[in-house]
Amino acid sequence: MPKLLDLATRRASIRAFSRDPIHLADVIYAIRVAHEAPSGANRQPWRFLIVTDDHVKSKIRHVCELAEREFHKIAPSWFKNWLRDKGISWRKPFLTDAPVLVLIFFKKDEPYASESTWLAIGYLILALEERGLASLTYTPSRSEDVNEVLNVPKAYCLAAIIPIGHPLCRKAKEPRTPLKRLCFLNTWGNPLTESEEGEVKLSG
Amino acid sequence: MPKLLDLATRRASIRAFSRDPIHLADVIYAIRVAHEAPSGANRQPWRFLIVTDDHVKSKIRHVCELAEREFHKIAPSWFKNWLRDKGISWRKPFLTDAPVLVLIFFKKDEPYASESTWLAIGYLILALEERGLASLTYTPSRSEDVNEVLNVPKAYCLAAIIPIGHPLCRKAKEPRTPLKRLCFLNTWGNPLTESEEGEVKLSG
Repeated sequence: MPKLLDLATRRASIRAFSRDPIHLADVIYAIRVAHEAPSGANRQPWRFLIVTDDHVKSKIRHVCELAEREFHKIAPSWFKNWLRDKGISWRKPFLTDAPVLVLIFFKKDEPYASESTWLAIGYLILALEERGLASLTYTPSRSEDVNEVLNVPKAYCLAAIIPIGHPLCRKAKEPRTPLKRLCFLNTWGNPLTESEEGEVKLSG
Repeated sequence: MPKLLDLATRRASIRAFSRDPIHLADVIYAIRVAHEAPSGANRQPWRFLIVTDDHVKSKIRHVCELAEREFHKIAPSWFKNWLRDKGISWRKPFLTDAPVLVLIFFKKDEPYASESTWLAIGYLILALEERGLASLTYTPSRSEDVNEVLNVPKAYCLAAIIPIGHPLCRKAKEPRTPLKRLCFLNTWGNPLTESEEGEVKLSG
């Protein structure tokens, strides 16, 4: 397996999926990895709903697109511009094109339920990348609609839908801000400088 | 590097750290991995404050323990029992014993700022494990006190403090619920069964 930095750097969010089938065992492998994540008081608040059925996918896509149409009307203008630049509309074809969806819920009344579950999603998408599978973390604008259409108990909140499959075409990764602008040493705003050998120095 | 499942399974939350120094380059490696995580609208809402200075660590420990003392009085009884069973008190020696702390903040006004940052914390702690470093995800009861004592702008919220180092003694990993109770196929509550060869079957 490559180094984690290579895996993490290689992974890009994919929004256009081919309909080629994938091995469900790879998806379950990634869920197994996610289930090893730490959680508040070890309550393991996550639940995974794997969706392979086309009829179920269509129902999910339908309620998500209804909410997205509304959201795209009211989004802040900077966000609308970003969405337009990226070619992202209210249409969510990945919800029916991707061969597998994994819906990740958390039990609302557990301590740090959302935080723990998002941490586990980090594990999950790295494990998918390890298995050569593309993914996206998509959170519907009105997640409670998804609960309703799928008869998921109200005690659980949908954190994200992860479409999984092979990309329709290769996509460049979104650029990252230089780390020195986001990473400080001992005092807020104090950048760290690093030599090419990885040695860290205080700057200034 | 081992498979991600091995890394994730091996990693256990550590609360007692030796004072042995570690290589800061390994910590920066893990932050670099975290910075490759996806984020809402690619806004990279995370900020990393690496703390190696003993005086800064003491200040952090002091404000955290003040708040923890209060929290341990008012916590729900099941949680108090869990804390007692685990030997967890309001005392947080790991905040001064661990050779390095990484404080992870997120910019509050970015979309999905907390969610994206916790996902990135998943990347971070796996990368620390890859480098043979132990860690804990600790969120103070009153994180705003930490902002204040460290002069961190109010626009940023502290997600977690990650003490990093070598464990004082080996610790068994917390047990996991069998996956089949948390993972469903196509319909909520419909367990999936998996043969030993990793082949997935619908049960029932």
